[in-house]
Amino acid sequence: MAFGWIEEQAEQRRRAGLVRTLRPRPADSPLLDLASNDYLGLAHHPEVAEGAAGAARIWGGGSTGSRLVTGTTELHTELERELAGFCGFEAALVFSSGYAANLAAVTVLGPHGSLIVSDALNHASLIDGCRLARGATQVVGHADPDGVRKALGTHEGPAVVVSDTVFSVDGDAAPLAALAEACRERGAGLLVDDAHGLGVLGDGGRGAPYAAGLAGADDVVVTATLSKSLGSQGGVVLGPAGVIDHLVNAARTFIFDTGLAPAAAGAALAALRLLRREPARAARAREVAAELHARLTAAGLEAVRPDAAVVSVRAPSPEQAVRWAADCRTAGLAVGCFRPPSVPDGISRLRLTARADLSGAEIERAVRVIGETRP
Amino acid sequence: MAFGWIEEQAEQRRRAGLVRTLRPRPADSPLLDLASNDYLGLAHHPEVAEGAAGAARIWGGGSTGSRLVTGTTELHTELERELAGFCGFEAALVFSSGYAANLAAVTVLGPHGSLIVSDALNHASLIDGCRLARGATQVVGHADPDGVRKALGTHEGPAVVVSDTVFSVDGDAAPLAALAEACRERGAGLLVDDAHGLGVLGDGGRGAPYAAGLAGADDVVVTATLSKSLGSQGGVVLGPAGVIDHLVNAARTFIFDTGLAPAAAGAALAALRLLRREPARAARAREVAAELHARLTAAGLEAVRPDAAVVSVRAPSPEQAVRWAADCRTAGLAVGCFRPPSVPDGISRLRLTARADLSGAEIERAVRVIGETRP
Repeated sequence: MAFGWIEEQAEQRRRAGLVRTLRPRPADSPLLDLASNDYLGLAHHPEVAEGAAGAARIWGGGSTGSRLVTGTTELHTELERELAGFCGFEAALVFSSGYAANLAAVTVLGPHGSLIVSDALNHASLIDGCRLARGATQVVGHADPDGVRKALGTHEGPAVVVSDTVFSVDGDAAPLAALAEACRERGAGLLVDDAHGLGVLGDGGRGAPYAAGLAGADDVVVTATLSKSLGSQGGVVLGPAGVIDHLVNAARTFIFDTGLAPAAAGAALAALRLLRREPARAARAREVAAELHARLTAAGLEAVRPDAAVVSVRAPSPEQAVRWAADCRTAGLAVGCFRPPSVPDGISRLRLTARADLSGAEIERAVRVIGETRP
Repeated sequence: MAFGWIEEQAEQRRRAGLVRTLRPRPADSPLLDLASNDYLGLAHHPEVAEGAAGAARIWGGGSTGSRLVTGTTELHTELERELAGFCGFEAALVFSSGYAANLAAVTVLGPHGSLIVSDALNHASLIDGCRLARGATQVVGHADPDGVRKALGTHEGPAVVVSDTVFSVDGDAAPLAALAEACRERGAGLLVDDAHGLGVLGDGGRGAPYAAGLAGADDVVVTATLSKSLGSQGGVVLGPAGVIDHLVNAARTFIFDTGLAPAAAGAALAALRLLRREPARAARAREVAAELHARLTAAGLEAVRPDAAVVSVRAPSPEQAVRWAADCRTAGLAVGCFRPPSVPDGISRLRLTARADLSGAEIERAVRVIGETRP
């Protein structure tokens, strides 16, 4: 049988207790959500839902083609202009996902003959971008500007340093200013994925590069998602107009993909405008994270001090992490559970999202449940 | 300057006349559209737009997380069940794009130690899947079952043959039955991308694999998009339940991507139900293609006989193809224009979409404009 080997792998997964299954949620889930990436609580905001609905009615269910053929509507351009303005960059280009945006940015900025320097704990999409790129990749230690400096010293010609701004698993931030300094010493470009920073860090949620004074720099390119703080779907690349033009001409995941659906563009635009109007949402997400961390630590749990809106709590083993998350769920609390093989360092943890719209009572309840169910 | 090399490449493009620019379209474009992939004319159907709008209102602007965490709603499951049922497969899994679905399917079905046999004219996303996969890739001639047989003969162990069902550029169909036969002789799996077949080929638009008697086979996996005939956004993998489970556990573009937005799932579901209710739309798209081809050929133009809903018309050169498409546009007709480097064979052409909802008068007008503007 052609796919017989798949059954063997499934059996190995079963034996190792690593089977993943989908758990469809109802529209009116009774669970308290600390598992999603809906950092600002905007995915279900009526204005965001209406942004999607209105765009679908005006522009249709899909964008109907590649962005280069029929898939660019005036709505896409409007969204791109406002995203660029908000984050402080010259130009922006939206994609159907953050994954696609990262594949595009890494492959285009890491062409044949170039060097790509990549943080060891970068997101899967950046790693796949490195693997697809024609340039050579050097993986350096996590959050290690000196390692970056050393790697850049081994290469003549174009180079780009690639890093998450906020690492999804532990919620820690990259040393952006130091990375930029290391890049500038060598004339290298800096490409950072602000998926978990946009909407949370920087003045009013303008993102980690903005907070680090890197917005609008001619040697910095930023990717981000529309599916986290902006409660929609899609990805974006922000940078100098020349770089964005080059992506339009050369990025395969842009050229050969259908454009982002109008509803997703409409939802993201509505969320962005909401955030501009209510900039305190960003600071509130950070406050909730700090409060979660303080209370969990006070309860004797090992939590990483959060740099953004992700709070990571260590679990003693993969099995106990899975059971812990399941026990939380039974008690009405949805938390993320990261374990091998999807964490590169082999450490299992609960991952908590510090949603800006969590109430004090909800935070208290979450901490109580996590404490009571601890292994 | 870090990205100075990009300006040099832009200059080269300008000199070669290969600059691509985005042309945002208004909601009420006066152009007659023969350029999109909206084969059934459903992207703007009120039921499809309402499917998106209603889903956004119930489920929010985004799915809020990975499909493995919070990103699977009951709406996703419903869409997957109905897609599998319609296409005749045991199970289905939806992705944020067809590109992501293809990366997932190829990488997971082409693991370390396996052989991937890939048609020379496959879509960019299948090619990128081959590049990301850990298996070894052998590229064979276009639509060449004997070449496939020969390639499979060079390898012991798992193997998968990868092909588009309908090639986007020329609109020609792969010899699916012969490819399946070659696979079965060697115990290899068959993975086909039905992006341009779903909704157009097979009984009521059930797709090319269904038409070839391959639906539900335990050695066949199909990918497709929700963004063409189904007028939405997203991709899908269809196949045996064991293969789909394996994707859930192993496909990086599934695990590390945010789930498809509810609005996109809702739009695709509405379109699928519409197609089930009005199955004649599929045959009508094929009729429009045949009529376009007959009339263009009668007018002395060199057009490829269409196997689905894409009609390809040869142009003498890249420059003339670009001018021809521009002249069509000036005359009120939007057509696709494919030219190097995005066509692997170096031939430039106009690409026409035979939308099922084109009227006789619109077909006549399109043929007249194309004839009058020919180089």
